Amino acid sequence: MNTVAAYAAPAANAPLERTTVPRRPVGEHDVLIEIKYAGICHSDIHQARDGWGEGIFPMVPGHEIAGVVTETGPGVTRFAVGDRVGVGCFVDSCRTCSFCRQGLEQYCTEGMTPTYNGRGKDGEPTYGGYSTHIVVDENYTVRIPDSLPLDVAAPLLCAGITLYSPLVHWKAGPGKKVAIVGLGGLGHMGVKIAHALGAEVTVLSQTLRKQTDGFTLGADHFHATSDPETFEKLAGTFDLIVSTVAVPLDFSAYLGLLKTDGTLVNVGAPEEPVSLNLFSLINARRTLAGSMIGGIAETQEMLDFCAEHGLGSEIELIRADQVNEAYERVLKSDVRYRFVIDASTI
Amino acid sequence: MNTVAAYAAPAANAPLERTTVPRRPVGEHDVLIEIKYAGICHSDIHQARDGWGEGIFPMVPGHEIAGVVTETGPGVTRFAVGDRVGVGCFVDSCRTCSFCRQGLEQYCTEGMTPTYNGRGKDGEPTYGGYSTHIVVDENYTVRIPDSLPLDVAAPLLCAGITLYSPLVHWKAGPGKKVAIVGLGGLGHMGVKIAHALGAEVTVLSQTLRKQTDGFTLGADHFHATSDPETFEKLAGTFDLIVSTVAVPLDFSAYLGLLKTDGTLVNVGAPEEPVSLNLFSLINARRTLAGSMIGGIAETQEMLDFCAEHGLGSEIELIRADQVNEAYERVLKSDVRYRFVIDASTI
Repeated sequence: MNTVAAYAAPAANAPLERTTVPRRPVGEHDVLIEIKYAGICHSDIHQARDGWGEGIFPMVPGHEIAGVVTETGPGVTRFAVGDRVGVGCFVDSCRTCSFCRQGLEQYCTEGMTPTYNGRGKDGEPTYGGYSTHIVVDENYTVRIPDSLPLDVAAPLLCAGITLYSPLVHWKAGPGKKVAIVGLGGLGHMGVKIAHALGAEVTVLSQTLRKQTDGFTLGADHFHATSDPETFEKLAGTFDLIVSTVAVPLDFSAYLGLLKTDGTLVNVGAPEEPVSLNLFSLINARRTLAGSMIGGIAETQEMLDFCAEHGLGSEIELIRADQVNEAYERVLKSDVRYRFVIDASTI
Repeated sequence: MNTVAAYAAPAANAPLERTTVPRRPVGEHDVLIEIKYAGICHSDIHQARDGWGEGIFPMVPGHEIAGVVTETGPGVTRFAVGDRVGVGCFVDSCRTCSFCRQGLEQYCTEGMTPTYNGRGKDGEPTYGGYSTHIVVDENYTVRIPDSLPLDVAAPLLCAGITLYSPLVHWKAGPGKKVAIVGLGGLGHMGVKIAHALGAEVTVLSQTLRKQTDGFTLGADHFHATSDPETFEKLAGTFDLIVSTVAVPLDFSAYLGLLKTDGTLVNVGAPEEPVSLNLFSLINARRTLAGSMIGGIAETQEMLDFCAEHGLGSEIELIRADQVNEAYERVLKSDVRYRFVIDASTI
């Protein structure tokens, strides 16, 4: 057992502070990763503040991890020391259920092992990426292509795959009109990826404040959702809408923006239930769907796609001791577009 | 203009009474239909009581119409006097939008013309099937195969197509586990059709009161939704759930019964919004969808399918003067499974 430096929330709602946590010895199929960068995801804040309940404390958040392999277990075949690698939202799953076998490990019937705030098969708590090192099974580790800088690659491990997976599953591409609701950490990757997939992309943001950014990121259109006219003008427009916001929306209104047979996919995770008028689904055979990150093979596919198209996250690099301040700014949507912790400062 | 006998609600919430209404002269492409039977749909009651607002009174409900052609316009090519025909929920649409061209007239961008409680292109109110005769464009008329008795065929024009369309669209068939929520006018047709399509069919009903009926109709399994154990035992079971109930359900609980990538389709029409926990969608890439009746070609396909498989509605035939009493019984779910008015008693 090794002890490594980390930033942890000692208890729900307590500020994060520097501490140390144990990492398991490098096992047969494990790689030891020296973490270079860790993105800050909105769900880190939810969990560190126990918004979803049942949090395990102390908690080391972080599931957008980019680093370099510094040691490999004797059975490791896919990675070598020096390889540039990433770790996303989970580090294990049952490996035998139909979903694991299909590469949909995120929906594992036994429940995947989250990168932090969970327990591994050994019963020990998992600790995430706000740390200097992590030990991960090679089957839950992905390769970061050489052309992607590690700092802008880190947020792809959650924000990138969370948008890539539904955009590909629901067939965003040439001839399709796609709207991305919310231009934050998730949304800005949605715009980049949907544009790279060839779709006509519209940003639906509360105000026009980020309009210039939206066009730079690849949007074709930009509308303010605070303007009721938006919902009249754009009625029946989109094949696919991906909502990235973490507060309950008026989904009935957004469903009205879909064509017949259109789909609204929610990847945000409001803590409160939403209210829905079912007529907005019935009167045009529309669907409301949810999607959660992606599988390991799909995450690798996403990284390769992003490398091919030169897509990284727009980031603001911070020192580890700025993490609490960064959390406050995320809650105020005051970041363009993802905070990334420089792990050398932990 | 001809005047024909009908049963109408003179005003919102007033009991239906015998009256007369005008029918337009038989035009170039029209057929005059002598109505033999008219089914009573739950939405007749919603509308006669103005549950959806903006009702046009006096209102002659009825959009499950089976009858015989007694006159044809000079341009009619598809029907002849004596043909057995049906009319469903709409009698016209724009005919030019992309949905009309695809045979999805029910989602016409201009809005279909409902069989009653709407206005035709001439601006006149439409009057439905609780009447002795109706004049309908041949393009919005379907053929009832000879092997289907007209009385049990009438409810297929709404209840039948409302279930057939989503079951076929979301691919109910061999190897698929399908649940039908609610065993009423819609639900009992869902069981029959899903079974005939080859799916493994489960009924989810409030109690086990109708269990014997469920098995007779073709269900393989029957569970009471009033028993909380049902939701534990059946978690993650179904590929497709079709909810036919008109009261708001706990959709989050029902979504938990779906497999990953499963779909819950709502064809009931609760007047109130429902509350939804989005995690129930997100955590297994599930979808919540809506579906509304079906197009004209699909309605014909459904009638042919029902004839081929010997499927009609289970009905209770009533005299027209029993309609108000029948409405009360529908509201108490006291009908197995559809009231049908014998139009010769109007």
